[in-house]
Amino acid sequence: MEPDRLIEITDPGDVRIAEFTSIRERDLTGRHGQFVAEGTVVLSMLARAHAGAGPVKAEKLLLLKNRVAGLSNLMAQFSSDVPIYVAEASVLDAIAGFHLHRGVLAIGSRAAPPDLINLIGSLPERSLVLVGCGISNHDNIGSLFRNAAGFTADAVLLDETCCDPLYRKALRVSVGSVLSVPYARQGGAEEVLGALAETGFEIWALSPSGTVEIGAIAPGRRVALVMGTEGEGLPPDILDRFHSARIPQAPGLDSLNVGTASGIALYSIARAMGRLG
Amino acid sequence: MEPDRLIEITDPGDVRIAEFTSIRERDLTGRHGQFVAEGTVVLSMLARAHAGAGPVKAEKLLLLKNRVAGLSNLMAQFSSDVPIYVAEASVLDAIAGFHLHRGVLAIGSRAAPPDLINLIGSLPERSLVLVGCGISNHDNIGSLFRNAAGFTADAVLLDETCCDPLYRKALRVSVGSVLSVPYARQGGAEEVLGALAETGFEIWALSPSGTVEIGAIAPGRRVALVMGTEGEGLPPDILDRFHSARIPQAPGLDSLNVGTASGIALYSIARAMGRLG
Repeated sequence: MEPDRLIEITDPGDVRIAEFTSIRERDLTGRHGQFVAEGTVVLSMLARAHAGAGPVKAEKLLLLKNRVAGLSNLMAQFSSDVPIYVAEASVLDAIAGFHLHRGVLAIGSRAAPPDLINLIGSLPERSLVLVGCGISNHDNIGSLFRNAAGFTADAVLLDETCCDPLYRKALRVSVGSVLSVPYARQGGAEEVLGALAETGFEIWALSPSGTVEIGAIAPGRRVALVMGTEGEGLPPDILDRFHSARIPQAPGLDSLNVGTASGIALYSIARAMGRLG
Repeated sequence: MEPDRLIEITDPGDVRIAEFTSIRERDLTGRHGQFVAEGTVVLSMLARAHAGAGPVKAEKLLLLKNRVAGLSNLMAQFSSDVPIYVAEASVLDAIAGFHLHRGVLAIGSRAAPPDLINLIGSLPERSLVLVGCGISNHDNIGSLFRNAAGFTADAVLLDETCCDPLYRKALRVSVGSVLSVPYARQGGAEEVLGALAETGFEIWALSPSGTVEIGAIAPGRRVALVMGTEGEGLPPDILDRFHSARIPQAPGLDSLNVGTASGIALYSIARAMGRLG
């Protein structure tokens, strides 16, 4: 780690770190492929993605000056074309617009997600994909990706009503998995599921009223697990048209959290497909 | 619903609603058994608890005036000894100290949680309990209770280093299950697990390095599932002294979120115990 790689920022208005300004408010605007990454684990995933041939690149880092000594391993993961800015706490807080107690930030960018049809066409013969319909909560989107990565899903397909997984909080909750799991976010639910059905996927929609117990599914070679929102769930026409599965639970309660439900269903299906060690 | 039951508040400093003042900051202080409940689902759980013989009572409600018309079913669940205050949005926001877009609040109180040993002694012959060790994140505590309720756990036992499940956010994330699932929060992990072992519980600690795959457990009549923190996990002496189980997943990733992991493990064990419909 050459010390002169670090570029000190003393003016919160410095144009070189303009992308970090007021990140909490700007987070909700959509950024044409740019995103904010936070924390050592997510930045480490970003470094790995940057080093690869994929669509994700790191643009710049911004670190709290008094944390730099402990971050040499992390910084060394980024090639020298990625500038590393450092700032004292008071400057950093003024840039971000709130108190950043961790002080480990990066701006990354991602080429537009692949076309839905191209992504489906690129999936292996034996595949497990997770589909989200109408998931607008950032935490839940992040959980879907974290669980997809943990349970070996080949891709996440989001319909156009889902929120952008590159939002700061979704990325953080995913522990960086948004940067590693292939995904598309395009089309209505009918379009996504139709395209999967045409390429030989069994489609299992998860619902409290599902007809088959999740642990009783005997999955085939290509399986798509479909998650809807917590409140309204999946539309009846989707439940009618495809297979539906339920997670059995105590009667009379609200359904499980979407993230937890996706974890249970992915675990159960991936295990039945022989994908877990 | 008699209309004169509603008491209008026009002064944010009114002593009758003093417990709702600045609830966001006061949340973290511990309240000697008082707690803030938010939202229609949690308030409905509070009404049910209040009507029962248990330790949880409702003290007062505070509602946004323009939501009252839609809440008559909810209000009718509370007996007439529970006063219902209403306020316009500007007054309500001034009381709470931030913008409450839902405007459905209550103060409840709970007698001190039962003594650990008494609670364990009250458990049925066939029992499933969830144990939390060192869980300090409010969301994670809430998730543990939501999943415990969903998967028929008889009790939640928290060691003394866990945060209070009556914190506003934990209660909200639990969807009110903190008010319905019996729990204790007392003693160190060794003490809690020792007391369970003495009363015939098989103790299964969940860990990425666990020796048995969670789906391969053949559980007995009394099972305790033990969850540690995401970062450090359970202490090695606990993993050595009791059974340990793992949720298999893709290699090289961070472990699952504690809430999701507890959901998968509870589902798997409750199913193997024949407790799910």
